[in-house]
Amino acid sequence: MRAKHKPWAKDKLLAHPEVCIADPETYKGKWHTLFGNDHPIHIEIGSGKGSFVSGMAKQNPEINYIGIEIVESIIISALDKVLEAEVDNVRLLSVDAAYLTDYFEDAEIARVYLNFSDPWPKKRHAKRRLTYPQFLDSYKQILKPDGDIHFKTDNRGLFEYSLVTFSEYPLQLTYLSLDLHKSDFEGNIMTEYEAKFSEKGFPIYRLEAKFE
Amino acid sequence: MRAKHKPWAKDKLLAHPEVCIADPETYKGKWHTLFGNDHPIHIEIGSGKGSFVSGMAKQNPEINYIGIEIVESIIISALDKVLEAEVDNVRLLSVDAAYLTDYFEDAEIARVYLNFSDPWPKKRHAKRRLTYPQFLDSYKQILKPDGDIHFKTDNRGLFEYSLVTFSEYPLQLTYLSLDLHKSDFEGNIMTEYEAKFSEKGFPIYRLEAKFE
Repeated sequence: MRAKHKPWAKDKLLAHPEVCIADPETYKGKWHTLFGNDHPIHIEIGSGKGSFVSGMAKQNPEINYIGIEIVESIIISALDKVLEAEVDNVRLLSVDAAYLTDYFEDAEIARVYLNFSDPWPKKRHAKRRLTYPQFLDSYKQILKPDGDIHFKTDNRGLFEYSLVTFSEYPLQLTYLSLDLHKSDFEGNIMTEYEAKFSEKGFPIYRLEAKFE
Repeated sequence: MRAKHKPWAKDKLLAHPEVCIADPETYKGKWHTLFGNDHPIHIEIGSGKGSFVSGMAKQNPEINYIGIEIVESIIISALDKVLEAEVDNVRLLSVDAAYLTDYFEDAEIARVYLNFSDPWPKKRHAKRRLTYPQFLDSYKQILKPDGDIHFKTDNRGLFEYSLVTFSEYPLQLTYLSLDLHKSDFEGNIMTEYEAKFSEKGFPIYRLEAKFE
């Protein structure tokens, strides 16, 4: 997602330390103390403008959410959404998902959400896809043994690649829809991108998977 | 697939013993002698009117094909197609796929094709789906260690079910397309059903998988 450079973005993030965590390494293994409870922690990688993470937080007050978005000029929109939603169970991190294990202890996380991740369609960029095996390794490390990955996308190529990659890894599929908005899945919170895309009538693909 | 009852169907099949094998148990472990060569044997389960198996046989003379279709009044159409195609590398069996291991020896088969199989959408009929684990057991038994399953369907529910079932079994996905006619897959031979359905613009799902 491209966004206008916003030089004041960092200042705005720093002005809201109750939501935006500037020093996430500090909380590695201690996120529960920051949230002040023992609720499960779900992370979303690539939170974009934050509709999903703020919507989920409102829908599920007994879950703690951490939204990760590397682009500062985008994550400020997520900050606005979280502030508007008046929820205290979300934190936002503007960090690179390649270093998840610097921020989360082994088995600290209950669920990883990947929503409309960048498809990186060129083969030579496959390593950057968030379902590339090296990323799966890091999810496996930070997830609890019964933790899972929830992934949705409109991108057929990325979903095909991911299903084959998960099969090989192996990850066990526990849910699959090849047309989410026509399925019986309940409680779906749409991302900004999803709302726009599904209006055009294209299918949204969705899966849940766990490490065996 | 429903078909008009055709009482003369059996006679027609019996009149063409060079294609329609009335006593397939006899050839268990000996199909190569019937074909008179050592070419790999591919079977299609649910051949319907035979476009696929006759088209593939014409396209690939170095492969032997066995089309299986339980409904006699349908398989006579397949017989007509095979006769028209003037190929000698196809045999047709009108038998129940539930008893594959009665007809084929362990590791006798190189590939199983499932094309537009009956989706059996009701949960209580799941056991009848050709991708139900009990069927997978029989494919595993008759397939060579490096043998594989090629499966295509327009039915979203059946494909979703099958991907989850394969993941659990486990079967390793080696190819996946969620929109076959827009993919780069080459040499696709359409079934009668596929031609009709894809004209309407609906996606055809396709996968290849092998036992690990």
